[in-house]
Amino acid sequence: MEIEIATIGGYEEVGRNCTAVRAGDDIVIFDMGLNLSKVLIHDNVETERMHSLDLIDMGAIPDDRVMSDLEGDVKAIVPTHGHLDHIGAISKLAHRYDAPIVARPFTIELVKGQLEGEQKFGVDNELVKMDPDERMAIGDECELELVHVTHSIIDASNPVLHTPEGSVVYGLDKRIDHNPVIEEPFDMQRFREIANEGEGVLAYIEDTTNAGRKGRTPSESHARNHLKDVMYSLEDYSGGIVATTFSSHVSRVTSLVEFAKDIGRQPILLGRSMERYSGTAERMGRVNFPDNLGMFGHRKSVDRAFKRIMNEGKGNFLPIVTGHQGEPRAMLTRMGRGETPFDFDDGDKVIFSARVIPEPTNEGQRYQSEQLLRMQGARIYDDVHVSGHLSQEGHYQMLQELQPQHVIPAHQNLENVGKYVPLAESQGYKMGRDLHVARNGQTIQLTE
Amino acid sequence: MEIEIATIGGYEEVGRNCTAVRAGDDIVIFDMGLNLSKVLIHDNVETERMHSLDLIDMGAIPDDRVMSDLEGDVKAIVPTHGHLDHIGAISKLAHRYDAPIVARPFTIELVKGQLEGEQKFGVDNELVKMDPDERMAIGDECELELVHVTHSIIDASNPVLHTPEGSVVYGLDKRIDHNPVIEEPFDMQRFREIANEGEGVLAYIEDTTNAGRKGRTPSESHARNHLKDVMYSLEDYSGGIVATTFSSHVSRVTSLVEFAKDIGRQPILLGRSMERYSGTAERMGRVNFPDNLGMFGHRKSVDRAFKRIMNEGKGNFLPIVTGHQGEPRAMLTRMGRGETPFDFDDGDKVIFSARVIPEPTNEGQRYQSEQLLRMQGARIYDDVHVSGHLSQEGHYQMLQELQPQHVIPAHQNLENVGKYVPLAESQGYKMGRDLHVARNGQTIQLTE
Amino acid sequence: MEIEIATIGGYEEVGRNCTAVRAGDDIVIFDMGLNLSKVLIHDNVETERMHSLDLIDMGAIPDDRVMSDLEGDVKAIVPTHGHLDHIGAISKLAHRYDAPIVARPFTIELVKGQLEGEQKFGVDNELVKMDPDERMAIGDECELELVHVTHSIIDASNPVLHTPEGSVVYGLDKRIDHNPVIEEPFDMQRFREIANEGEGVLAYIEDTTNAGRKGRTPSESHARNHLKDVMYSLEDYSGGIVATTFSSHVSRVTSLVEFAKDIGRQPILLGRSMERYSGTAERMGRVNFPDNLGMFGHRKSVDRAFKRIMNEGKGNFLPIVTGHQGEPRAMLTRMGRGETPFDFDDGDKVIFSARVIPEPTNEGQRYQSEQLLRMQGARIYDDVHVSGHLSQEGHYQMLQELQPQHVIPAHQNLENVGKYVPLAESQGYKMGRDLHVARNGQTIQLTE
Amino acid sequence: MEIEIATIGGYEEVGRNCTAVRAGDDIVIFDMGLNLSKVLIHDNVETERMHSLDLIDMGAIPDDRVMSDLEGDVKAIVPTHGHLDHIGAISKLAHRYDAPIVARPFTIELVKGQLEGEQKFGVDNELVKMDPDERMAIGDECELELVHVTHSIIDASNPVLHTPEGSVVYGLDKRIDHNPVIEEPFDMQRFREIANEGEGVLAYIEDTTNAGRKGRTPSESHARNHLKDVMYSLEDYSGGIVATTFSSHVSRVTSLVEFAKDIGRQPILLGRSMERYSGTAERMGRVNFPDNLGMFGHRKSVDRAFKRIMNEGKGNFLPIVTGHQGEPRAMLTRMGRGETPFDFDDGDKVIFSARVIPEPTNEGQRYQSEQLLRMQGARIYDDVHVSGHLSQEGHYQMLQELQPQHVIPAHQNLENVGKYVPLAESQGYKMGRDLHVARNGQTIQLTE
Repeated sequence: MEIEIATIGGYEEVGRNCTAVRAGDDIVIFDMGLNLSKVLIHDNVETERMHSLDLIDMGAIPDDRVMSDLEGDVKAIVPTHGHLDHIGAISKLAHRYDAPIVARPFTIELVKGQLEGEQKFGVDNELVKMDPDERMAIGDECELELVHVTHSIIDASNPVLHTPEGSVVYGLDKRIDHNPVIEEPFDMQRFREIANEGEGVLAYIEDTTNAGRKGRTPSESHARNHLKDVMYSLEDYSGGIVATTFSSHVSRVTSLVEFAKDIGRQPILLGRSMERYSGTAERMGRVNFPDNLGMFGHRKSVDRAFKRIMNEGKGNFLPIVTGHQGEPRAMLTRMGRGETPFDFDDGDKVIFSARVIPEPTNEGQRYQSEQLLRMQGARIYDDVHVSGHLSQEGHYQMLQELQPQHVIPAHQNLENVGKYVPLAESQGYKMGRDLHVARNGQTIQLTE
Repeated sequence: MEIEIATIGGYEEVGRNCTAVRAGDDIVIFDMGLNLSKVLIHDNVETERMHSLDLIDMGAIPDDRVMSDLEGDVKAIVPTHGHLDHIGAISKLAHRYDAPIVARPFTIELVKGQLEGEQKFGVDNELVKMDPDERMAIGDECELELVHVTHSIIDASNPVLHTPEGSVVYGLDKRIDHNPVIEEPFDMQRFREIANEGEGVLAYIEDTTNAGRKGRTPSESHARNHLKDVMYSLEDYSGGIVATTFSSHVSRVTSLVEFAKDIGRQPILLGRSMERYSGTAERMGRVNFPDNLGMFGHRKSVDRAFKRIMNEGKGNFLPIVTGHQGEPRAMLTRMGRGETPFDFDDGDKVIFSARVIPEPTNEGQRYQSEQLLRMQGARIYDDVHVSGHLSQEGHYQMLQELQPQHVIPAHQNLENVGKYVPLAESQGYKMGRDLHVARNGQTIQLTE
Repeated sequence: MEIEIATIGGYEEVGRNCTAVRAGDDIVIFDMGLNLSKVLIHDNVETERMHSLDLIDMGAIPDDRVMSDLEGDVKAIVPTHGHLDHIGAISKLAHRYDAPIVARPFTIELVKGQLEGEQKFGVDNELVKMDPDERMAIGDECELELVHVTHSIIDASNPVLHTPEGSVVYGLDKRIDHNPVIEEPFDMQRFREIANEGEGVLAYIEDTTNAGRKGRTPSESHARNHLKDVMYSLEDYSGGIVATTFSSHVSRVTSLVEFAKDIGRQPILLGRSMERYSGTAERMGRVNFPDNLGMFGHRKSVDRAFKRIMNEGKGNFLPIVTGHQGEPRAMLTRMGRGETPFDFDDGDKVIFSARVIPEPTNEGQRYQSEQLLRMQGARIYDDVHVSGHLSQEGHYQMLQELQPQHVIPAHQNLENVGKYVPLAESQGYKMGRDLHVARNGQTIQLTE
Repeated sequence: MEIEIATIGGYEEVGRNCTAVRAGDDIVIFDMGLNLSKVLIHDNVETERMHSLDLIDMGAIPDDRVMSDLEGDVKAIVPTHGHLDHIGAISKLAHRYDAPIVARPFTIELVKGQLEGEQKFGVDNELVKMDPDERMAIGDECELELVHVTHSIIDASNPVLHTPEGSVVYGLDKRIDHNPVIEEPFDMQRFREIANEGEGVLAYIEDTTNAGRKGRTPSESHARNHLKDVMYSLEDYSGGIVATTFSSHVSRVTSLVEFAKDIGRQPILLGRSMERYSGTAERMGRVNFPDNLGMFGHRKSVDRAFKRIMNEGKGNFLPIVTGHQGEPRAMLTRMGRGETPFDFDDGDKVIFSARVIPEPTNEGQRYQSEQLLRMQGARIYDDVHVSGHLSQEGHYQMLQELQPQHVIPAHQNLENVGKYVPLAESQGYKMGRDLHVARNGQTIQLTE
């Protein structure tokens, strides 16, 4: 059976991930992501109203025109998890394919949210929730499976396409976490089994985001311990404390909520995306928030919440807000600019449970946000965080466990893939033979 | 005679420079500058309509309330040169003093421009133009002199207050340039004479901006040579070339204008501040621009100029524009966003004859500006520049030539002053004795 | 009573800490440290045989000639803890004073070791062990106390001189750790009491090492958790694992020893200083190492240990060695160069439970050490560590708890003290009034 | 005719450059370089006595075992210029091939020097000097030419193999310099002709060292102007001045020699490699040094020279020495350690006419060297230098002028090649089609 891989997006950047695998006449597309930075650099771009081709030209969504080179039918679109760089282009591209969108439940709910906002295209692909212990037939001979992995969002998976020639493991976005906070540990056992089933692993597409980082990415429980150390140290503080983190990082939000209670504060989630992600997780029963946990997304209700905080005493609350990268329109930045009813007093604390994504735009915006907060008297705790991506030792480990015949580094530009290549070579792979360094829009034929 | 120095502003930051010297009953104030970054961090702040006290609270202008500790009359306000961090607060503070503003001619013209824009206060201090070979009496026993120095703007000076106790040399903003492009060389001879007149130099207030940089700041002719190398290499290019630099840097603009002609292009200055500084210099006969040099500041005339460039062929022109720091509203950034009639083609060149001022906000904005330009096909030449401030060897040399009894480092925060202190100590000064590390708002009594 | 402080060493550098406090006629000297980098930059310098004045000229030990300006008798020399930058000059300077050396027991033992190595001077000052609950009279009116603090070595203290004018708190080298691994938590309660006793705190000398770091330095338990995450992830690895950390960091060594057992490996401490510090702690009953824990310092016994490891299988051992900064002669660097019987195989792990001290020499040496290790096939885990020094929030907290009348930043050069000054100013202190920025060799008179 | 390229060395690193081109049955090898850093990381390695295979294993010299995959005879070994990373492995590898070594005269002389030092292998390949206006037949149908290019050493060339299928241009190590100091300008005219002759350019192997640098590498005359600015500013200094630069950079040495005379000092070249390169250039009549220019390489004669300098007065001399990277055994480092008769006085100057090669080992060593010099009172001028390699605009220009059918980036690791690839793609090349990203040891078949 011919197995072919199309490297549609995410092979020249972090963002707009998209990869198609053709097995005979059947095709599965993994991820359809958005490169948000390509949107935000422009003022006043409303992607909801934009046409796919314009977004492709901007480099914002995957250029799926390479799909015409693949002879076969798309049988499923499979987002690995709910981050925008993996699901953000579904609303612009999925309607072109007569195929269901298949993912774990939390991811499907987030995809739903995306589709509801879309105003240009009517996307009516079937949405199929699938769990790691289920299988879906792809054509007559292949089968799709979602292996549970741990990342900075719940319900992350590594989809595996089982073919007669071996498995294709789409390995994007994970760290090997043996102690995640609200989920099962990373399922290395299943990967080991896959490596030993049938023909073993034909191809492994790897998340090389952190290929330049030595050692091992620590567990989420490490970030949780750090956060605990910080928050417990503030137990005696009677003024305002504000926390910010990735709104999609439900485990981290859960830790913030818990520790807020521990130090005698009522947590309140503020900001549209805070409400969306945590609200979804709660409605699905995936987290167990306290009954009175407030979540407010709309401007008016946010303002009301802030007023209540100011009236009842800042010392009684922990607002958990958006804005960890200093995004100019996010809640924390607005608080820094004095645009909300929340007033900082000298000595109030702001906890960034996030790391600045290292790029000058973010660094500049975050710096400005911190300056504004400091000018109001606030003090900063930063980097209370661990990455969601494998470091070098994780890469070694995955190669060792899966023993893939072919390796395809993804989720980075060539400069960074260049950090992964020597690592794979040290394990016996050879560029141009079984280690495939691709650009966006290429096809790689693995078997004939 | 009592000599006392008040360190009003610029002793904790780069910006809002202001220092007063009292000699007996007479006071001279050197510089009244603006810290622009403290203004720009806020959206929509219009300083023209703001009150002094609010601007003081923002840290934007010098807090001159320490002046009430000085017993005496202000006899002159003496800006060293026309940069905003030296003249930008005159419109907000000078009216409080019954004293003329005394400076070299180009500086006075720029002060005039500042005062015309002011909408809150009526500043009607006399404006007095003074040349380096003139002297002004300050009270009965003292005399003011402006020594010619070289900096990144023409008509820069180091004011010297000659007192019976020795001279006080206000040494802000200079490099030692033996080959400036359109001015006389740095007047070291005059400094040597001052060191040997009367009681010698009582106090020297030093510009420590670059105290961390090894060696010697090169001459403006070095930047000019670099620019020539770049521009001559583009002689055969028939597409668009755009240059940006500090609009106040008339020497640099002159070099750009000359080399544009040399490679067969008509230079055009675009942007309000480009028009202001270069127009002023031309009207005063300080530069000799070609007759047909266009300078356009107003939106409409700028657009007309761009349309003419597009119609007659970009290859015939060199637009010299504002925006070297990626300022969001400057001309080059607007060109990058496609907001002007100028279109970039693949391979067009943008020359940054400037260095990014190393601060995350600037770095982020400049990065975004370059990204926008690149997305349109432009290619970047950066860092065609030399600094206007002394490096370490200049500091050594000034101490050696002046042999001041007291040294007062200025124009930096304490972190950076910390790089200057060991240098001065190696020359025999001692902190707390004759090396005075001050904060904003202190007074230092030098003689009784 | 006159209280005067002499800033003898550590006010222009990290290293050679030394401060004297005179209360009336009685003087206490806190710390006599060595600046090791000033020694190591020279080849073949043997400090053991060198004269004090030569070491002073090199900047290696404190220049205590300022002591002649203090009129009084030295009653005690009080090292805060056992790091070289606090005790390393005792062997060169203490014999000049007719006074006992007073410190916590572990520190005294380490001082003893220093004195035994000394070959130039005969230092026979009395060595007095003192615990935090004891007091020592200093003259008729003053009393010395050692408050328990937490740092990266056990038995760290902040000595307090109680005087009729208030307490002088010598606050060097600590973090506020509520969960240290093998010691009591930081004794904030005692500091609070001191702040409220008698005249309160007259002066506080602060450790400004990390004044530029935001937030709070995490607990040692955070480093321990990180280490656990790393080591447990290696449980299945059957090849060689090597760990390195500060040999004086007995808590960290203890964690390494424990986790080694947990993953089925026998820990072995290798290197002279490993043997010295851990051996001392064990003999004193301060740690509870397993009976069979090997500690080897001499070349021959080290080689025997390595041979045993190679013979019995690297998978059974965890060598814990010196060399975390890539020091050219340390054990790990020698292992990297192949100078020991230990052979690395591809995939063997090296855990750096330490951070590179950020200075180009260290960075270069550490880089070389890692290169050598990698060339042998080893893989690196780095930065499994937390700092032992207060970050900004710790500084705020200490000022708030102690409410000192005077603050004297120490343990850094002026560039870094410049990061502390705005912090203290924000709490109401004023440079030149009650915030004393000093250089080495000054005296500060606090009361008359 | 089959044209095939073997990427032997320099495709994964900066160093050990080596590329073979097979045209039918005839092979030409371009460069046989040494990766010096792989040697220096080991203590006491004497390459002169080492076997090739050991050096290959160390990564120090090209692994030419891939040559067995090329069916044909080596007709010439063609080093582009005399830097070690281009000629340093000739003494270890050339004897394996029955072929002459063909290069420009200065390069041949330096190769001779290399071969004389070799103690393991007897290399007796014929040495053939060839000028840019000459041609050498390679087999029946091909011809070799050396195009004159400008680099940081004289007599640099880009060899071109003219084949019936088009030219193969080996483009390593150049900048486009229209005003080099002692040579002819870069011969762009000849490249243009080659692009238009016969089948045009079949393949271009590009020097991507600086692919990450924006803009244009300035001319050597820019560095010369900078050096002049620095040295003329020291005209009045009567103490010691020392300069260091790349000993192979004969143009720079010439500028140093000239400016030394201009400011009234006698230049003296000190250090073995200073003597070798400059002596060779002088004997060949390539430079016109003053008659009395001293050059001393041997320890004794160097010491005599230093003694003479000290006796006759440092103010009369300019020692030009090795050690610009802080190499531990180089002359300047030895001077810093006080191991030579030269004594520094406070205020003496050291001019680094070189840039630190950005790698932690160099940075650490250079930092130590500067520290040692400063401890003796010396003051540092650094970065009086320009790079010898093309920046981005040079890369664009070469592609535009040559219009090669195939592009092969070299002289870097994959991380840095990753900066070149988007540049080439923007000019229409496509990775995997006509843009060949290779690793060491691959073959690329261009025509059949």
